[in-house]
Amino acid sequence: MNYMLKNENAIYYECGYSCDNALYLRLGSEAYFITDGRYTIDAKQHVKGAKVVINGDLYAEAVKLLKKTKVKKVVFDPKEWCVAGFEKLTSQTKIIFKPELDFSHKKRIIKSDEALKILAKAAKLGAKAFGNLAKEFQENGFGKDEFTLTYMAKSVLGDHGRYDLSFDPIVAIGANAAKPHATPTKKKLKKGDLLLVDAGLKYKRYCSDRTRTVFAQEGFKFKTKQNFSKKKIQKAYDTVLKAHDNAIAKARSGMKAKKVDALTRDLIEKAGFGEFYVHSTGHGVGLDIHEMPYISKKSDTVIEDGMVFTIEPGIYIPDEFGIRIEDMVAMVDGKVQVL
Amino acid sequence: MNYMLKNENAIYYECGYSCDNALYLRLGSEAYFITDGRYTIDAKQHVKGAKVVINGDLYAEAVKLLKKTKVKKVVFDPKEWCVAGFEKLTSQTKIIFKPELDFSHKKRIIKSDEALKILAKAAKLGAKAFGNLAKEFQENGFGKDEFTLTYMAKSVLGDHGRYDLSFDPIVAIGANAAKPHATPTKKKLKKGDLLLVDAGLKYKRYCSDRTRTVFAQEGFKFKTKQNFSKKKIQKAYDTVLKAHDNAIAKARSGMKAKKVDALTRDLIEKAGFGEFYVHSTGHGVGLDIHEMPYISKKSDTVIEDGMVFTIEPGIYIPDEFGIRIEDMVAMVDGKVQVL
Repeated sequence: MNYMLKNENAIYYECGYSCDNALYLRLGSEAYFITDGRYTIDAKQHVKGAKVVINGDLYAEAVKLLKKTKVKKVVFDPKEWCVAGFEKLTSQTKIIFKPELDFSHKKRIIKSDEALKILAKAAKLGAKAFGNLAKEFQENGFGKDEFTLTYMAKSVLGDHGRYDLSFDPIVAIGANAAKPHATPTKKKLKKGDLLLVDAGLKYKRYCSDRTRTVFAQEGFKFKTKQNFSKKKIQKAYDTVLKAHDNAIAKARSGMKAKKVDALTRDLIEKAGFGEFYVHSTGHGVGLDIHEMPYISKKSDTVIEDGMVFTIEPGIYIPDEFGIRIEDMVAMVDGKVQVL
Repeated sequence: MNYMLKNENAIYYECGYSCDNALYLRLGSEAYFITDGRYTIDAKQHVKGAKVVINGDLYAEAVKLLKKTKVKKVVFDPKEWCVAGFEKLTSQTKIIFKPELDFSHKKRIIKSDEALKILAKAAKLGAKAFGNLAKEFQENGFGKDEFTLTYMAKSVLGDHGRYDLSFDPIVAIGANAAKPHATPTKKKLKKGDLLLVDAGLKYKRYCSDRTRTVFAQEGFKFKTKQNFSKKKIQKAYDTVLKAHDNAIAKARSGMKAKKVDALTRDLIEKAGFGEFYVHSTGHGVGLDIHEMPYISKKSDTVIEDGMVFTIEPGIYIPDEFGIRIEDMVAMVDGKVQVL
C-alpha cells in the first residue's frame, strides 16, 4: 500500500525516528523520510527502511517525489494534514489521494512484542513514580496549592528531567476533582482532603497513564484500597473500585469494546451513580496517549490480544468530589494483564 | 468580515479565552465560541464579545450555525484546519470559504498597547529568570549533563511551576551549540565550556524569548559581554554581538524586514563567517513564539511601530561551537526598544 504521513508518532512508528518537521512517503517499494537540515545528522543515523531526503521545503520535495513515482493511489489520514499542506501536495499531481481516517492508529492497534515490553516498562516506571510522589506530597505537599502540587507531580513523574511526560498531570483536591479535566487552582491541600492524581511518563516514546484517588491523611499511599471519612465518598469510591476490578477480571479478547465498557458502567448505574459517570471506560495507549481501541458504550471494535488500553471508571459529583481509578492493561492470552 | 478560527491562540486573541477544544465563528455581527461541556463554566465566565455554545461535536454545531446564517463568504487560514474538519464544515453549506494564509497572524502583527505591556513584562521576567539560572548553574550545574541542565532551565524559567514556558529550553555545551535546534545529550558541563541557553516563559499567555552564549567559568553571568579563552570563539562571538547591536541601533520603522536582516548579515559576512549564519535575523513574538514579522533576507514586510520581534544573529561552526545572542525588541516611535 502507498501512503503519506505527517504526524510525528505515525512517522516514528514506520521508521524508528521522527522530529517536529518531517514528512514520510511510502511509494511502492520505496520509502522517503523528508526533513530539513537541522536534523540531517540524527535522521541519517536513526531512520530505518526509508531514504532520508533533506529539503527545507518538505512539501516541494514531496511534490517532486510524487511527480516521479508511477504509483497511482496514495492513502492519507485527513485528520493528519492541514488544508494548506494537503493542497500543495495534491494540486500538482494526478495521483488519487484516498482519505482513511485514523490510518496510522489502525495500524498500531495491535502492539508488537517489543512495543508491549516498552509499554509494560513505562507503566512500571509510572507506578514507581506514584510511590515517590506520595512521599513527596507527605513531606512537602500539605499546605501547597494545586499549581505547586502539579509542578511537584511533573518533577517526580519526569524523575527531574529524565523522562518526558505523557501529558500535563492532573492534581485535583476535593470538589475540583469533579471536573474530569481539572486545571489547577489556588486551593491548598490539607490533611483529610480527597486528592486525585492522573499522570504518566514516556519511556522510549511510549506513554504510561495512571490515576489514583486517595484520602490524603498522614502516611497515605496511592493504593486502590482507601478509607475516606465521609460515607458518601466511600460509597462512590467502593463503587468505582468494584467497576474497575470487574472489568479487569472479566474483559476477554473477542468481546466488543462496548461490552467491556458495560463491565464498569452497569455496576456504577446499579449503584445509582450512572449520571455521574460522564466518560468512557478507557482508551488505547501507545506512542500517543489516546489511541485505539476506545472502550466506549458505542464501540463495536473487537478486543484482541496485543491491544493496550486503560480501564478508568469514575464518578463525578459537581461541587462535591470526583473519583477515578485508572490502570493500563494489555490483552494477553485472551485475558487482561494489568501493566 | 466573516471568518472561522480553530487555533487556540487565534481564538484567544478574538475573545480573551480559549481551550484545547474550541471553534470560533464570526458571522456578520454575531460571534460564536463553541466548546464542549468540560469548559462550560470557564468559557461562560471569560469569553468576551461572543456567544458561548456548548456541544460535544464542535463541527456539528458549527455546521448548524453556518446553515442558519445569511453570510455568503467566510475567511479561513488553510494552515489552521485539518482536511477532515474542514471537509465536515464545507461539504454541507453553500457558503464560499476563502483561504487566507496567516489570517490571524496578520491581524496580530501590530501589538496593542495592552499586548506591548504584557510582552515587556514577559521579557523582563525572562531576563530575571536568566539571572536566577546563572546562579543555579554555578551552584549545581557543573558536572551535570545537558538533560539535567535543561531540566534545571525549565524549573527556573517556569519559576518552579508558576509560569508556562514558551518552548522547551535549549541548553547546549560547546560543539552541541553548533546545532541551532540542539536537543540534549549526556555531555557534562565543565568550567571553561562554551554554554548556549535559549529559553522563554509565558506571562498572561504571551511569550518571552532570549538567548545568551557564555564562557562558563566561575561566577559567569548571562551578559552580552563575554571573554572566551579561545581566540577563534572570541572573534566569532564579537562578530555576533556587533551584528546584534548594529540591528538594534539602526533598525527603523519604515524599513523592509530584509533590510533589518542585512543589518546583522552584512557584518557577519564581512567578518568571513557568512556561511555559518544559517538562519534569519529573527521572528515576531506574541501569543505564539513564532509570529509575523519574519526578519529574513527575503521578506518585503515593512517594519512598523508596535511590531515585536527577536534580533538573534548566530554563527555555527559544525563540530566546534555555536554562538547566538537574542533579544526581544519592540518598534516604538520609529526605533528599536529592547524589551
